[in-house]
Amino acid sequence: MSEQSADLPAGVDTRHGIELDLGRGERRGYPEAVYCEGKTADQVGRIARLVAEAHDESCEGTGSGVTLFTRARPEHAAAILAELPDAYLDERARLLAWPPMPPEPTGGLVVVAAAGTSDQPVALEAAHTARFLGREVESVDDVGIAGVHRTLARVDLLRSAAAIVVVAGMDGALPGLIAGLVPAPVVAVPTSVGYGAAFEGIAALLTMLNACAPGVAVVNIDNGYGAGHMAAQIARHAPPPTG
Amino acid sequence: MSEQSADLPAGVDTRHGIELDLGRGERRGYPEAVYCEGKTADQVGRIARLVAEAHDESCEGTGSGVTLFTRARPEHAAAILAELPDAYLDERARLLAWPPMPPEPTGGLVVVAAAGTSDQPVALEAAHTARFLGREVESVDDVGIAGVHRTLARVDLLRSAAAIVVVAGMDGALPGLIAGLVPAPVVAVPTSVGYGAAFEGIAALLTMLNACAPGVAVVNIDNGYGAGHMAAQIARHAPPPTG
Amino acid sequence: MSEQSADLPAGVDTRHGIELDLGRGERRGYPEAVYCEGKTADQVGRIARLVAEAHDESCEGTGSGVTLFTRARPEHAAAILAELPDAYLDERARLLAWPPMPPEPTGGLVVVAAAGTSDQPVALEAAHTARFLGREVESVDDVGIAGVHRTLARVDLLRSAAAIVVVAGMDGALPGLIAGLVPAPVVAVPTSVGYGAAFEGIAALLTMLNACAPGVAVVNIDNGYGAGHMAAQIARHAPPPTG
Amino acid sequence: MSEQSADLPAGVDTRHGIELDLGRGERRGYPEAVYCEGKTADQVGRIARLVAEAHDESCEGTGSGVTLFTRARPEHAAAILAELPDAYLDERARLLAWPPMPPEPTGGLVVVAAAGTSDQPVALEAAHTARFLGREVESVDDVGIAGVHRTLARVDLLRSAAAIVVVAGMDGALPGLIAGLVPAPVVAVPTSVGYGAAFEGIAALLTMLNACAPGVAVVNIDNGYGAGHMAAQIARHAPPPTG
Amino acid sequence: MSEQSADLPAGVDTRHGIELDLGRGERRGYPEAVYCEGKTADQVGRIARLVAEAHDESCEGTGSGVTLFTRARPEHAAAILAELPDAYLDERARLLAWPPMPPEPTGGLVVVAAAGTSDQPVALEAAHTARFLGREVESVDDVGIAGVHRTLARVDLLRSAAAIVVVAGMDGALPGLIAGLVPAPVVAVPTSVGYGAAFEGIAALLTMLNACAPGVAVVNIDNGYGAGHMAAQIARHAPPPTG
Amino acid sequence: MSEQSADLPAGVDTRHGIELDLGRGERRGYPEAVYCEGKTADQVGRIARLVAEAHDESCEGTGSGVTLFTRARPEHAAAILAELPDAYLDERARLLAWPPMPPEPTGGLVVVAAAGTSDQPVALEAAHTARFLGREVESVDDVGIAGVHRTLARVDLLRSAAAIVVVAGMDGALPGLIAGLVPAPVVAVPTSVGYGAAFEGIAALLTMLNACAPGVAVVNIDNGYGAGHMAAQIARHAPPPTG
Amino acid sequence: MSEQSADLPAGVDTRHGIELDLGRGERRGYPEAVYCEGKTADQVGRIARLVAEAHDESCEGTGSGVTLFTRARPEHAAAILAELPDAYLDERARLLAWPPMPPEPTGGLVVVAAAGTSDQPVALEAAHTARFLGREVESVDDVGIAGVHRTLARVDLLRSAAAIVVVAGMDGALPGLIAGLVPAPVVAVPTSVGYGAAFEGIAALLTMLNACAPGVAVVNIDNGYGAGHMAAQIARHAPPPTG
Amino acid sequence: MSEQSADLPAGVDTRHGIELDLGRGERRGYPEAVYCEGKTADQVGRIARLVAEAHDESCEGTGSGVTLFTRARPEHAAAILAELPDAYLDERARLLAWPPMPPEPTGGLVVVAAAGTSDQPVALEAAHTARFLGREVESVDDVGIAGVHRTLARVDLLRSAAAIVVVAGMDGALPGLIAGLVPAPVVAVPTSVGYGAAFEGIAALLTMLNACAPGVAVVNIDNGYGAGHMAAQIARHAPPPTG
Repeated sequence: MSEQSADLPAGVDTRHGIELDLGRGERRGYPEAVYCEGKTADQVGRIARLVAEAHDESCEGTGSGVTLFTRARPEHAAAILAELPDAYLDERARLLAWPPMPPEPTGGLVVVAAAGTSDQPVALEAAHTARFLGREVESVDDVGIAGVHRTLARVDLLRSAAAIVVVAGMDGALPGLIAGLVPAPVVAVPTSVGYGAAFEGIAALLTMLNACAPGVAVVNIDNGYGAGHMAAQIARHAPPPTG
Repeated sequence: MSEQSADLPAGVDTRHGIELDLGRGERRGYPEAVYCEGKTADQVGRIARLVAEAHDESCEGTGSGVTLFTRARPEHAAAILAELPDAYLDERARLLAWPPMPPEPTGGLVVVAAAGTSDQPVALEAAHTARFLGREVESVDDVGIAGVHRTLARVDLLRSAAAIVVVAGMDGALPGLIAGLVPAPVVAVPTSVGYGAAFEGIAALLTMLNACAPGVAVVNIDNGYGAGHMAAQIARHAPPPTG
Repeated sequence: MSEQSADLPAGVDTRHGIELDLGRGERRGYPEAVYCEGKTADQVGRIARLVAEAHDESCEGTGSGVTLFTRARPEHAAAILAELPDAYLDERARLLAWPPMPPEPTGGLVVVAAAGTSDQPVALEAAHTARFLGREVESVDDVGIAGVHRTLARVDLLRSAAAIVVVAGMDGALPGLIAGLVPAPVVAVPTSVGYGAAFEGIAALLTMLNACAPGVAVVNIDNGYGAGHMAAQIARHAPPPTG
Repeated sequence: MSEQSADLPAGVDTRHGIELDLGRGERRGYPEAVYCEGKTADQVGRIARLVAEAHDESCEGTGSGVTLFTRARPEHAAAILAELPDAYLDERARLLAWPPMPPEPTGGLVVVAAAGTSDQPVALEAAHTARFLGREVESVDDVGIAGVHRTLARVDLLRSAAAIVVVAGMDGALPGLIAGLVPAPVVAVPTSVGYGAAFEGIAALLTMLNACAPGVAVVNIDNGYGAGHMAAQIARHAPPPTG
Repeated sequence: MSEQSADLPAGVDTRHGIELDLGRGERRGYPEAVYCEGKTADQVGRIARLVAEAHDESCEGTGSGVTLFTRARPEHAAAILAELPDAYLDERARLLAWPPMPPEPTGGLVVVAAAGTSDQPVALEAAHTARFLGREVESVDDVGIAGVHRTLARVDLLRSAAAIVVVAGMDGALPGLIAGLVPAPVVAVPTSVGYGAAFEGIAALLTMLNACAPGVAVVNIDNGYGAGHMAAQIARHAPPPTG
Repeated sequence: MSEQSADLPAGVDTRHGIELDLGRGERRGYPEAVYCEGKTADQVGRIARLVAEAHDESCEGTGSGVTLFTRARPEHAAAILAELPDAYLDERARLLAWPPMPPEPTGGLVVVAAAGTSDQPVALEAAHTARFLGREVESVDDVGIAGVHRTLARVDLLRSAAAIVVVAGMDGALPGLIAGLVPAPVVAVPTSVGYGAAFEGIAALLTMLNACAPGVAVVNIDNGYGAGHMAAQIARHAPPPTG
Repeated sequence: MSEQSADLPAGVDTRHGIELDLGRGERRGYPEAVYCEGKTADQVGRIARLVAEAHDESCEGTGSGVTLFTRARPEHAAAILAELPDAYLDERARLLAWPPMPPEPTGGLVVVAAAGTSDQPVALEAAHTARFLGREVESVDDVGIAGVHRTLARVDLLRSAAAIVVVAGMDGALPGLIAGLVPAPVVAVPTSVGYGAAFEGIAALLTMLNACAPGVAVVNIDNGYGAGHMAAQIARHAPPPTG
Repeated sequence: MSEQSADLPAGVDTRHGIELDLGRGERRGYPEAVYCEGKTADQVGRIARLVAEAHDESCEGTGSGVTLFTRARPEHAAAILAELPDAYLDERARLLAWPPMPPEPTGGLVVVAAAGTSDQPVALEAAHTARFLGREVESVDDVGIAGVHRTLARVDLLRSAAAIVVVAGMDGALPGLIAGLVPAPVVAVPTSVGYGAAFEGIAALLTMLNACAPGVAVVNIDNGYGAGHMAAQIARHAPPPTG
């Protein structure tokens, strides 16, 4: 094994689709993403340096070259900020973005709804992802099924969306409730919030897969990035919100 | 093992609490129940004959001696009707009762709500059980979470209940929705309705155990009898419905 | 419980969102759907009659009033055809539609890809659903991961899609492979095809939830209807295919 | 997303049904509850301040405005006590209440039975909840199934209850044993006590769902709050204990 | 593969320990057993013929050469009876034995307790096995935990046992209850009796593994043979019952 | 979807790697395989005809063109034999091969060991597969762990193997035992033989994955074809057996 | 709840059967046991003081009053030693006993076999328990199935046992191997040793429940105390070892 | 139990097959291995000393006596290096080897492919194991299924292998992709990399067991040692790579 050549492609994580020579045209406007969780701070720092260098060389003058760093622990964030001092950081969402400004939004509106306070970190990851992928995003909090009037009070906003991300732990019932009220597709994100028979998000995951209303599809537990990405793709061709 | 003595107590099933010498006073008004599923038609028929004989001897003149036969397949029903020709039979609920009339209702109102058409057999088992245990029962159908306006349209009835049984398969979200709207406790019954990741009722069971609203407790999958029994117990001391 | 009034709303299944007074405007163009699996042939037949009557009264002159019947066994199909003799029937997909012609397609292209022969019934259910919901649909078969060159040979078609449904059992790896090759979002459908540790679709479901490429969301095992519906929603605002 | 407006409703947790504009009349007498586990100490502290302010404004002169804080870690407790210095705190139960006195009890007796020493924190959470919801509560400890004579020795107390909460880990057999001895409904709480094949409470949960005696319904693992709430609802209309 | 030589050892099943050249001395008095379930009637018939031939040759004059056939379906039973017409058959237990008489009992008493009617086939398999392995056996039926007074009424018999087999489905709580009352070890057999969250015996299995009383060990679900064998081994050296 | 073009690639199953234009050179000597289970008899019959035609055209004079049909039910077998009347058929293994003669063996010896009678169909599928892939195969039956002397008696044969397939259900302990005795790698096949906590092969699968001896790798439950294929690949370059 | 009266019975743990007024005669010779894991050091210390006091009062002159403390962490051990300074302590087994000497052994020999080094703590807990319950105990280590010759080398010792405890993690195959070699019953203890698909002992547990040899029964994962107790009960009436 | 004699064989772990008197001839050339995870640093240090002493005595002049230490935490490594100061250590792989040089490679090429950065520790363990077992090893990194072109770019190397180890977490799809491209058998290693529904490697494990291409067998989650060992065995008789 040649350590040198192995390290660079290893640093540039394949999970989030950094595709240098294939598919670039098709994906223009979608930021690249680096999943930090399985990497050392050192590895993440070297990727950040690569990102800085690549930006200098090839992306000049375009706004599309945003790179996201997801699931960044404090030591990851520090390593990234050492290379990209002006990067955008949301600690609750454990997400960084560089360059730090999202592109001018295009396409339809993405609404991100969270059932409870504890679901907010995942909801923020989804919202930031969709925003840096070029969509306008609105957030709705605390619209859990136990207080259905709160959800009903936001129906107008929900119906104006081109794509809706619904984040919920515990019983995970919110996506099915919302999907029954709106024309847009719902990307459901189960969270590991809850205890006992919540089984780290399995209960919410199963609820969402069995949602009675059509128009719900599900991503992995706590996968705010994936949900935001999918929502941005869905809303890409929709007309912009009229509000 | 003495076959003769073994058969009689075997016929009189312990599962549903036929208590001849203990607790009789405390349970007055609650019908006895025979769970047919694990028994042969012949065994069930002999129990029916015992019930007829016991009634002749000791329960004369009282309405409280109703016996329920649950989970009765057609051959069970035939064997029971051979001994108790005037027994009440609901084939969809797979339930028989004898004597065939429920007692005059006392206590508060029990409402039985079913999420979908396929949940009705279990809901009927719950409703009959509560009725033969001495409660007034109202049923509400097709109030699934995908059409929340239907549930909201029945809020007045739901709020008048002293106990509510909510029967739901698939995502099992209905009990949590209803519990957030009413003051009465909710007995939730997951059903094995659904497919794929519904896992024969496990998804609904987990959803109900994780319901975000307080005031929900859960019985076994498809256990309409248990839910109806629990609801009748809960509503026992409540004032009768005013409607 | 009043049997008469209970039966009608039971016949009109809430699962697939027959919404008579709410949300109609938002959902225009999406056909209603009746999930047959938990119902008797008699119940389904009565729903078919209702559909016929409702169509005569209110939907005259529009093409949008298509009703889908999903998961129809032969006895269901017979009961429906007795009421709606010209209904469209695909026995492999266990699906009927009436009126029998899909609307003129609008929006972007939906591609439905199936990994193997045994996945075709579910893929057909998805394809018919999207078509009757108003999209143009192309199907791609036998593009499993064990013969990756077959998938690569269809990349141009896949890249022209606005939404892609990928149906796969066994290892369920195909959606992740395709999502890495295209800009459109992928709706993944695990099927119960396989044996042993495939666990009736659980293995494929987990694979899809863990897909390494972003842009994948998952519906319930064997839920072709849900996937087709979601894909039609996604492709709604996309430009029509240029081919 | 507007951070400011998002924070307040986020702080006011929907899980325990703080309903400001709906259902207040129906729920009078039931204290509000704040689930601390998924929140920061700072968030919980801000809620405590809101509670103090709301009490000053609107609940003057009534005893019904008790707020419960459940699953409070020491840092949560400190943040709450900083705002509500006279709040009641039970560290073992991880519960605080303010105002610190439960209302004068009404309704029937709630008995809380715990199988073992390790089940006591959950049992205490249930007992406090029922007490602050307005019921008289009696506790019974160490009545596990391995020493059945201990349970039998307490039968008179158990039979005087209008609702019984039974808390048990490991084999979870106690609720079924008690339900066979009493006329009142049993709310069963599995605990995560045990090891190996206890699977963090799953074994006890399954045992309780399969209890052979009718009259048992189950809440989530370790959910003492939910059980106490349900028991208080059940006992609401029962006559007060005669002892 | 040589079909001829393969068939004979295949017929003589290794699962139940037919050991021709090893351990014979240590196992004297324990009958051999043939597990029929995975075999064709033809294979089982050929084994029965071998048993007959081997008996003629070598076991003359001893009572110890009993062979058990377990899990025999009717076609298995017919094939065995064709070769061994005087074999003992209990259809409910699905068990045959030949020669048809158990040996004169030695050692201590084995008690087999069954919780419910549906558990009797497994209990009978256990009882017959222990009896043909040379122990005196007493059976106790319908002593489920929901009617604890029934169990208490049999305490004297239970305390006289040298080994107790307890057979229970559903909540599986009976072994723990009995083990807390007696000095003898309890071999617990979960059965697949029950529904829903009984999960084909898993709930009972977990309950038994988590029994709060020491002195309980568990065999596979529905494994009456294994439990009877183990109990016979345990009671081997105990003094005979004094009754 | 064009039915015509869809049917042919559907008929030619991708699962077993019929690769017409890629990888042919690398795979020479390995027969193609058609997995029948998810296909209709009609579909399988059409594939058989394609196989016959392709053989006539391109494989003349070589022995390498053997096609296997696995998991063939009787109706599949009939449809294949209608097209390929001289095909080899082993009903117990549910396998057909055409042309009906395996190639002259090359490479090292493959030994296939089965723990019990019920494991033989899977063992036969493995043995036939390895033989038709060009290896010499020896079978060993009834060498389960409960009679370890039987395994020890075959150690010489086991040690002469270049690859060993070990097939076992129930406790699945045999592969670990054998791997500790031999230098060759062991391909372990769990079978769905067993009951109760065998969980359709899961117990055996887990045992094999946790085998204490190195040199064990596992294929799917009941996957005799996969194991035989893997063993043939492993033994490919080994010296032929000297016996 | 009366704290004072609640504390004492809470301190005296019911799990290990401290039975003061029932069953004492039947259990003579079996030490009492206190399960420390769910208790605070303070609670355990108070129990130790009770044990000291009770001993002074009532057990004078007898050796049978040994009390075991199991699953004791260092702080538990310190609290116990503060009250009972001469208690026996084995830190690896996390077990204390007081009075510190086991009684003179009676009954048959108990052999405790451990598969690997990591299984030794559980094996020691079993061995100490059996010894303090009054049996002679021999230990056998490192007899895993991957080196079957080691087990065979100890067959004479194993065959001299009246009861055998077999402790194994990972694949858990050892109990089945040993049970096939000996006449005594085997109490199998799965341990949580292993990784990945060992699933904290589930793999070993399932293997043991599916052991092919009769004469194996299983206790909870890591439950050395339960296994030692059961083995002591089994060996109670057996003749003492002749060696 | 004799502590002294127990300690030494306990130190010499049976899991990795240190066979002193059996099978030595058959295994020549395979290094011994010590699994450190369940052992104390002290126990591992004593084994290291034994290894040093045994080497001095018996293995002089041969290169085959390499011993591997796997799953070594830093304290294990320190204890080993204290005895064997020149041992080879790879901290990422948590592996040590002594003597520190692998033998001169024989047999065919082993390729170790890792899907992502986080899979590298397991891949390194596999690569080192195969190398110290005497094979030439090549590593390929970052060839996940989401970027299939990367895998295709390495097809020539993959096709030159005699055995391929494929290491992947998350969706675990890579082994099936590679097996469809090459003639060599694939040993698949699921890793615990991932989150949520990855379930600590279960998702990847199931994917690999259900791989659509034949020629894949699976080892335990994260078991790089087992995979490298199996690959070395497979490649043993293959011709050396020609490159």
